[in-house]
Formats: sequence, structure tokens, C-alpha cells
Amino acid sequence: MEKAALTRELALRLPRYFRVLRQYVIQGRQKVSSGELSGQLGITASQVRRDLGCLGLSGQNGYGYSVKELHDALGEELGVFGGRTAVIIGAGHLGHALAAHRMFVGRGFTLIGVFDRDPAAVGRKIADLSVLPMDRLAEFCRTHHPHIALLAVDAKNAQEAAQAVCACGIKGLLNFTETELDVPKQIPVESVHVGDMLYVLSQRISDE
Amino acid sequence: MEKAALTRELALRLPRYFRVLRQYVIQGRQKVSSGELSGQLGITASQVRRDLGCLGLSGQNGYGYSVKELHDALGEELGVFGGRTAVIIGAGHLGHALAAHRMFVGRGFTLIGVFDRDPAAVGRKIADLSVLPMDRLAEFCRTHHPHIALLAVDAKNAQEAAQAVCACGIKGLLNFTETELDVPKQIPVESVHVGDMLYVLSQRISDE
Repeated sequence: MEKAALTRELALRLPRYFRVLRQYVIQGRQKVSSGELSGQLGITASQVRRDLGCLGLSGQNGYGYSVKELHDALGEELGVFGGRTAVIIGAGHLGHALAAHRMFVGRGFTLIGVFDRDPAAVGRKIADLSVLPMDRLAEFCRTHHPHIALLAVDAKNAQEAAQAVCACGIKGLLNFTETELDVPKQIPVESVHVGDMLYVLSQRISDE
Repeated sequence: MEKAALTRELALRLPRYFRVLRQYVIQGRQKVSSGELSGQLGITASQVRRDLGCLGLSGQNGYGYSVKELHDALGEELGVFGGRTAVIIGAGHLGHALAAHRMFVGRGFTLIGVFDRDPAAVGRKIADLSVLPMDRLAEFCRTHHPHIALLAVDAKNAQEAAQAVCACGIKGLLNFTETELDVPKQIPVESVHVGDMLYVLSQRISDE
């Protein structure tokens, strides 16, 4: 089956599929039904079949899907096996917390540099990397070609930092600053809105 | 129109609607069409109309929706106006970063306590709050009744910390540990998967 273009909603769901499937692989499971994935993801089984169909994946009647096949296809789609590299801009509390995140441990992304504009932060060790000054960024990128930059600076420094990484040939930006960034159109930006999940939780608690 | 029960997918979309509408309110806009919201959210206009219909909101032909009406209804649904309170468990880098997050500044949630099991962390100032030891949590909750706990501890301490807050009458848990928590069914848990957005970004960058 041919792959269709993915909608934004599906692109947002794929990491959730992958987390579930990763768990199944760890548990040594062989197969899974659309109904079970439906329960895990909180969407209908027919939506699951449509989603996987968009990736060219189809199940078998009475068997379901091969866990390994789904896991590998999703991992491929998400760039888990691509050996991609990342830098963190901002060596404050958030930068520290992100450097220790397990997405950089066996999840297909390698953290190769941490940068900060504050001279007091330069030279500190974060996740075995020495924090480098921002004026070393361009040279670093010419040598190491990081794919992704994680922006973990203060909101007021966000736009300047974003422009700096974009000028260095970064291919995508993960923005934790909650500032709307103005960057060249060809460089994709995803923003992590921590507050969103607080609101999702808030809908589920009672006020009694 | 009567309110229908919200699906999980819609519950996840509501904070995104709210962010867009909040921006419109700040800009002083009066009205918005389903087509425009559709573009902002990356879903179809008919999905926007269905979503808002689930909240009992309908637009007018040729006018669209009132920005203020949508904003207020969504804010109500998300508990933005409810004066809810939160504590953070874990005073490490992540706890520090969360305490400074703007979700606690004018977004309807007030941070009232930070706790840590490490005696070395106790007494430190985070966001004007003195870090308290975990053995003060029960007494604190009896007095202040926080609604939500943000779990920002190491993965290996996650389950123990979750049990502690659940035993103290917390109404909901925001889990940053990426550990699957085993807590009483009546206490909702939402997990923030920072790595998911890295994968969403990864889908959008080219490998050449």
C-alpha cells in the first residue's frame, strides 16, 4: 500500500503509538489488535486502522498487527533509527533537566553540545558536556552539523537564540520558551507547551 | 445546546484552542471563523464546528464565533478561572524550571508548595517558596488542600512520591517522570512526554 501524506493530528499521534509499541516490544509481545491500540490511545479502532493505513501498514483478520513491524515502521517514520544529533541552547534549570532526559538515552537522538550566553555558565558540565559560549555555536555547527536545537532560554532571549541557531544551518527547532518564534519558513519549529497538560488534567479533576 | 461528553482527543485539543483564543483576546479581536481556527489548529473547519458544538458553542452564519464567548467558555472548561492550587514534588532542575513556568503566572494555577526528600534541598528558595521536606507534606495538605501535584522527581522515586501525594488527598497528578504510575483509579494522572514533540519535529526535518 502506498503511503499517504500525514495530517498534523496523525503526526502528533505517532509518538504515542510508538511509546505503546515500544512497551510491547520490551514485554516481548508478538501481535496487537486495532481494538487494543484503540484503548491505549483513546481513539476508535477504525481510526487506528486508518492511521496505520496511512503509513502503509495493514493488519490481518483474526490476527491483528505484528508488534515488531509496527514498531519498526513507526520508529523509521519518527527518525528513531537515524542517529540524529541535538544541541541545547540555555544551560539553566530547564537546559539541565532536558540534558538528563531519556530521549537522549537510547531514543535515537544524541546530545552533542550545550550553549549559553552567560559567561558564568560556560565551562560547567552538563551530561558530560562542557557548556560552550554562544559565540562558539557557528564554528561548532560547521564541524558537527547538529540536526536539532532545543531552545531552553528565557523568553526574552528566545528570538535572538532562534536566529542564531537558524543562521548555523540547524534543521529543526524544539522550542520550550513558549515564545512565538519568527524563523525562516523552511526550518520547522515545534513548541512544547507544558501548561497544556495542566489544563488537560484540570478538566479531569472535580471541584467539589 | 446541551454539552456532550468530551472525547480524549477533544480534551487534548482544548488547551490549544484556548491558547489561540487567548492570543486573539490580547490582540483585541472580536470574532473568529471556524476556517481560521481550523488553520491555526491544523484540523478541518467542520471538526472545529463539531468540537465547539460539543461545548455547547455555535457560530453565526457570516459572522463566525465571538472570541470572548469562546475564550470564556474554554477557560471555564479548563479550570482557568477556578483558583486552583498546585505543589511541586522534587526541587531539582526540573522542579526549578517548572516553578518558574508561566502557567503559574496568571494562568489560573497558584503554586503554593515545593517538596523534596533530600535534606540538602530543604530550605532552598524556589519561586519565593522555601522547599519543605516530604514528611511535612501530609500536614501541609491538611491545611492548604492543594488540587494538583506536579511530579518532578527521579524515575526511581516516582512511585513512592505519587503514593505520598495520593495519600494526602491530592485531586490530580501531573507526571513529568515518564514512569507509569500505579495510583488509585479516582485520581487522574496526566503525563508530560517531552520526547514526543522531539519525534514530531523529527518527522518534519529532512535527512539530506
